[in-house]
This record gives sequence, structure tokens and C-alpha cells, in this order.
Amino acid sequence: MERIWTTALPTHAGQRVRLQGWLHRLRRLSNVTFLIVRDGKGLAQVVVEDAALIEQLSGLNAESVLTVEGTAVAVKEAPSGVELRDPVVTVLVAASEPPPFDLFRPSLKAQLPTILDHAPVALRHPRQRALFQLASGSMAGFRAALTPRDFVEIQTPKIVAAATEGGANVFAIDYFGRPAYLAQSPQFYKQIMVGVFERVFEVAPVFRAEPHDTPRHLNEYVSLDVEMGFIEDHTTVMQLLTEVLRSMIEELQRNSAGAIATLGIALPEVPREIPSIHFVDAQELILRETGEDARGEPDLAPAHERWLGDWARREYDSDFLFVVGYPMAKRPFYTYPDPERPAYSRSFDLLFRGLELVTGGQRLHRYDDYLATLALRTIDPAPLEGYLMAFKHGMPPHGGFAIGLERWVARLAQIPNVREATLFPRDQQRLTP
Amino acid sequence: MERIWTTALPTHAGQRVRLQGWLHRLRRLSNVTFLIVRDGKGLAQVVVEDAALIEQLSGLNAESVLTVEGTAVAVKEAPSGVELRDPVVTVLVAASEPPPFDLFRPSLKAQLPTILDHAPVALRHPRQRALFQLASGSMAGFRAALTPRDFVEIQTPKIVAAATEGGANVFAIDYFGRPAYLAQSPQFYKQIMVGVFERVFEVAPVFRAEPHDTPRHLNEYVSLDVEMGFIEDHTTVMQLLTEVLRSMIEELQRNSAGAIATLGIALPEVPREIPSIHFVDAQELILRETGEDARGEPDLAPAHERWLGDWARREYDSDFLFVVGYPMAKRPFYTYPDPERPAYSRSFDLLFRGLELVTGGQRLHRYDDYLATLALRTIDPAPLEGYLMAFKHGMPPHGGFAIGLERWVARLAQIPNVREATLFPRDQQRLTP
Repeated sequence: MERIWTTALPTHAGQRVRLQGWLHRLRRLSNVTFLIVRDGKGLAQVVVEDAALIEQLSGLNAESVLTVEGTAVAVKEAPSGVELRDPVVTVLVAASEPPPFDLFRPSLKAQLPTILDHAPVALRHPRQRALFQLASGSMAGFRAALTPRDFVEIQTPKIVAAATEGGANVFAIDYFGRPAYLAQSPQFYKQIMVGVFERVFEVAPVFRAEPHDTPRHLNEYVSLDVEMGFIEDHTTVMQLLTEVLRSMIEELQRNSAGAIATLGIALPEVPREIPSIHFVDAQELILRETGEDARGEPDLAPAHERWLGDWARREYDSDFLFVVGYPMAKRPFYTYPDPERPAYSRSFDLLFRGLELVTGGQRLHRYDDYLATLALRTIDPAPLEGYLMAFKHGMPPHGGFAIGLERWVARLAQIPNVREATLFPRDQQRLTP
Repeated sequence: MERIWTTALPTHAGQRVRLQGWLHRLRRLSNVTFLIVRDGKGLAQVVVEDAALIEQLSGLNAESVLTVEGTAVAVKEAPSGVELRDPVVTVLVAASEPPPFDLFRPSLKAQLPTILDHAPVALRHPRQRALFQLASGSMAGFRAALTPRDFVEIQTPKIVAAATEGGANVFAIDYFGRPAYLAQSPQFYKQIMVGVFERVFEVAPVFRAEPHDTPRHLNEYVSLDVEMGFIEDHTTVMQLLTEVLRSMIEELQRNSAGAIATLGIALPEVPREIPSIHFVDAQELILRETGEDARGEPDLAPAHERWLGDWARREYDSDFLFVVGYPMAKRPFYTYPDPERPAYSRSFDLLFRGLELVTGGQRLHRYDDYLATLALRTIDPAPLEGYLMAFKHGMPPHGGFAIGLERWVARLAQIPNVREATLFPRDQQRLTP
């Protein structure tokens, strides 16, 4: 008999079927015993009446691996509307120990460090699992937006000879006795590839040796990177990003309904045009409305990002807000200045529910502009030779953005700590599992 | 006027259109001058008759970035059947130097090290570009096979506390003053995730500090990884791999016809059932047919893999050959032994045109088997605690495989050195660009 998924049970009512999965829970009530089986997709309720079988199952640890054959019967009270009766159970693998926490409770009753220490088991909880279904669906939606728009998927090296975003905050490697680094972003390579394909994207890990220990920082995370040639300015990039976000949401609506229901969340709507505010105007607004004077600061404080997120929700009914024109002083050397206000840039951050989710903008594209800005910032151009080669040989106006996958999922699912939206997070303290 | 791709020209004959791209070549013949414009997708021929414009274009370096408006005219002799006439050319960016080699020749006239040193320019050559269209299409075909089969895409950490495949050949990192390593494969994590989703895949870089300096080794490459639970044995995995390869080829047929034509290659056919030979039988066959006695050797020599590749083509008309049952001695500790011949394994390599392209097989799934094999191999289980936790808490029979993306592309395109099928290769000597 072909095995079916638990989620397919409702279409098999009246038939004898075969399930495989884990002993999620054995629930002994006064008048009936339920075996709950969990497979890769969902849960199934099995009615156990045979005393010997109840005895056998009682002797097993939760998470033992089972094959269950039974008759699917439509029952209004069963969680999925169908339950299995007259089961024949085969134990494929008996779990050696009980799990460190009950996986059958609505949420894991443990502190986050304990959950992360036991990720190989904790991730089996339906709620944790739903988070990573969102991650998987979001990657699919990201690609689904870009492929029909003629973007080519690339994979660029993670071992690099020079730091991308500045000299600090990189992990050093011993590369056959030579120093090398882990890529902080695919920035240089995706720009080079604009000279090849014009439009490229990459889904890959990035590495930041930042000493921050906050609920929104990771030392390794997944970056959804895009770069595009022949743009008008940063607004071309912002339009593309809007379409990409819309595709990500639509993909989740289409294929992740179960995960969304499990998490009990509402997906955000992506407005036809995401509201946008200039950095300077944002600071003025914050001063006017809160009395806090951050003018002259080169960046937005997290509290001010949150305030702006609330403001966008009140003012525009939007979960998303573009902040454009960040001061050049805080942006990397490849940032394109606003020709009309050269102290400010053609760059943007996208706030999602008050958290910086995406950074992007237009980049310099003229070789001479690179040489000038490197000289001005006293950055040695020698280690950047390969990067600069692309600009020496003709590069169009271009720009792009990078979405932090884990922040996106955490924000979607209203999870306060990005670590919980990461399969096996890496921070200063955590290298395992 | 909206810009169109060069590849869209044939559908615009008779219309005034706008192209953007690079000055691929200025071809001054005695009676006519052709400007060849290259954009992200293809080439267009522009007839230039205006003397002043010819003069202006002659003063530009190749790879300068242009906007060209002109009238599309159907002309039998033009490369795509359509050429542009009466052009108005705007120079967006003048290239600072001529390229290090002519990009308009049928292939790059330079040695491989020179090509790789100048990758940011060399990759713009239509032939090089076609290779990475194959890579992109192959990744799409890989995912297209797995998503409808309920596989979930995952992203696992690349900074790890313990080596996967053994203690040597790993790159060491300074992780906030602690030792850490770059992941040699996602093996441990994809197995752990079988306990969560049953079926997972990952497309991500892997890192091997191998001292090999051969045309088929890289120190960083892209691995297409799959892992699946509730298998019968390794043959379940081989069937899945066959379907995945078929999907990759079909995707290329559908969406990469241009790249295939540029490279002048024929895609392989994936047989309904890929022929398979046991490791021991392969050694016997090689002895019988070539007189070379490799019996007792724990692995196949590259020359013998090539011979088997030729044999499969002669005998089965197949570019693919499974070699199954490799000796346990040479396989990693998680390999599942053949119960009937315990010195041999339920593992396989897939040879593609005589080169090892894929390694896979069934894995151990019982906690006690792991403890026993680690003890036998005198491997300390302590650093593997997180990995072993998955097995302690119930894991089904499972297996998987890993395809090396660059080897696949190199073999598809009949390229002798895998470095040329890698955007920015990393080997012992090469860290840039």
C-alpha cells in the first residue's frame, strides 16, 4: 500500500490507508486513546482501542517512528475532519529518550536558549516548522518575481581576499597559509555581474563578525540579493523591490496556508506604491511629533525606526515604509550621491513593521567616480582591483538591494528574536548545534 | 520610448526601437560600418552610415555603454534576421580602457589563467555567459523537480563547530576568538532536517581545503543537496536523482536554447532507468577488459571512471552510470552498510560522461548504530552532540545525494577545466577576483 501524507487524509475517507511518521502524542482519556502521528506535513489522529496496542505504544518514547495502517473515517470532531480507525502499527524506530520538551503543546514551553540548544528536536514542533515553511515559500516567491523579469540566478564566492563593507566585522580564514575573509555580502560580485547579465540575483549566506548581541542581529544569515542595470535612479530599484515583496506574499498565500494558519498570523498587504519619506524629513517629523531631536545623526535609531513604522501604519495603513536619502557619511563608498543634495544619497532602507528589512539604492557606475571616492575615503584601491576592473570597462547606471531572510520571517510571524526564525543560528555565543 | 532586449528585435521589424547595451564591436568594412551592441541577453547589428557618428564611435573603447535608437529592418543577411538602421546613439559611459581581449571573437583568445584573472570582463563573452545560463537553468530545474515532490528548501549554517567529513581538509576560522570551521557539506544539517520536514534540499556553497590541484577540483563550489526520509534503500534515492536530472535537462531545453546554441552542445538524454553496476563488478569488468587489476582498491581511479563512462556509452548508449556499493572503508561514518555484504555500502556515485558528478546513498538512522560506528572508527562523539540528538529522538530510514553544480556545467558544455564553469573560482593559488 502506497503511503499517503497526513494532509491527504480528508480525500481518503472510507479507505484503508497507510501513514508514516513520528509518535507525536499518545493521549489516554478515560474512554478512548488517541495516537497522534506527525509526518513531514501535518498531524493525524488515530483511535486505538486494542489493549495490547495501547500497552505497546505506552512503552514507546514520543518521537518514535511508526508506520500506521488504518481506515480513514470522516468524524466531525477529529482535528482534520478525518481520523484513522482499526490501526495496525509497526514500530520502525523506537526513540532512545523522551524529547526534552513536549512537542504536542501549542507552543514550546522552554526558554529560547534551551529551544536553540535542542534545535534538532525543537524544529519538529509544528509552530517552529511553520516558520521555516514561510522561509522556504519566501525564497520561492523571491525567485518567482525575478525569473520572469529576466534576472539570472548567480552563486558568487564566499571566501574573498578583501572586505566588502569595511575592514572591521569580517571573519578571517586561514586560506592555505594566506589571509582571507568570509564575504560580508555579494555586493562586489553582483555589481560585476551587472556587466554580464544586467540583472542578477543570489540567495546565499553572508557573514558579519559584528559584536552586536541583539534580538535582530545574526553573525551568519541568508541574504536575498538583487542587482539591476540600466536603471533611472534608486526609484527603479524601489519599484522592483515592491514587486518582489508582492510576489513573496502571493507565493505564501498560495502555498503556505497551513503554516499561516498554524502561526495564526495575517500576511501584510503590499501597497501599490509603498510610502516613502526622505531621511531629513523623517528626522524633522520625529522632532515635531515626539520632541526628540535626532537631526544631524547620520542614521536612524532602532526606536525611531519603530516610531516611523507606527507612523506609516497610522498615516498610510502600510506595514512598509521607504526611508530614502540616507547621509552619504554612513553609506558605503559605492553609494550614489543625490546630485541635488550631495551630502545625501540615492539609497534607501525599507522598514517592515518598524524594523530595517532591506537596504538598497543606486551605486556609482563610473570608474573615475570610484577612484575619486576611494581617494576621498582613503581606501586603498589595490585589493579592489578585480571589482574596479568592471567599471574600467564600462558599467551602466545600476542599483540593487538585499533582503535579510530571517528578519523577514521573524517580522512576518511577529517573533521578537530573529534567532527563532533561523534554523541553526550563529551568534557570538552560539556555534552549535 | 521603452527599451527592448536585442533578442526581441525580430518581433519589432518595421518599428522604431530603443536598445541599451555595450559596444561589442565596431566593424568597419569597405562599404559599410556595423556597430554590434550587446545587452544582457544577446547581440544586435546596427548599420552606421553617418560619417560623424562613425568617427565618434571609432573614438570609443569597446565595452562603452550605449543607448541606440533606430529602425528595425528585416534583412536576411543580418545575424538575427533583423538589423537596426538610421541609428541615434547616446554614449552613457565611455570605457576607460580597451578590454584585455577581444570579446567579439568566437572564443576568448587567451590562456585560462588570463581569462580567470580578468573574469569581470571575460564573463561578458557570449560563450562564457552561456555557461552560467546553463548553471542558472540547472538550479531552476533542480528546484522544479523537488518542490512538487514536497521537498522544502532550507539554508543551513556554513560556520560550524566540527568538521563533517573528517578532520582534515577544512578551513579554520577565528570565531570571536574560538576555533570554528567552514562547512564541507550540509550533510549533518540536511539529515537533521529529515526529522523535521522528511524531504529537504539546499543550494549553497561548500568549502573543501583539499590540496588537490586538478581540472576537476575547487576549494569552494556550489552543492545541490537533497535528503529524503522513509526510503526503502539507496535505490529510492537513485530513482529520485534520475528524476531530478531529467528535470534539469528539461528546464535547459525549455529556457536555455540560446545558450545551448551558442555553446554548440547537445544535451544528454536521461535514460528511463540509468544503468547501474556494483563497485566489485566494475573492478572485475575493468580487469577483464583492460587487464588492469584494481581489485582491493577502495575507490575508483579517475582513469577507471573515464573507462566506465565510455563503457556505459557503448553498452547502454548512456552518458550516465551509477556505481553502487562502494566499500565502507572509504565512505563516511554515516554510510549505511549493505546488510548482505557488510564490507560494502548502500551508497553510490553517479558518473556523468566518465566523471564523478554525484555522491549519495542511504545513511544510518538508528542512534545505537551511530554510537557503534563512531566507537569503531575512534571518532569522538562529543563534538557531534547536536547531530546525534536527531537520532536519539527517532529518525526514519533516509538518504540523499549532492550534485556538484560546476562539474555538471563543465561536463554539459564539454569544458575540460571546472574553473571555467565557475564565476570566480577559488583554488590554492586563486583568491581573486
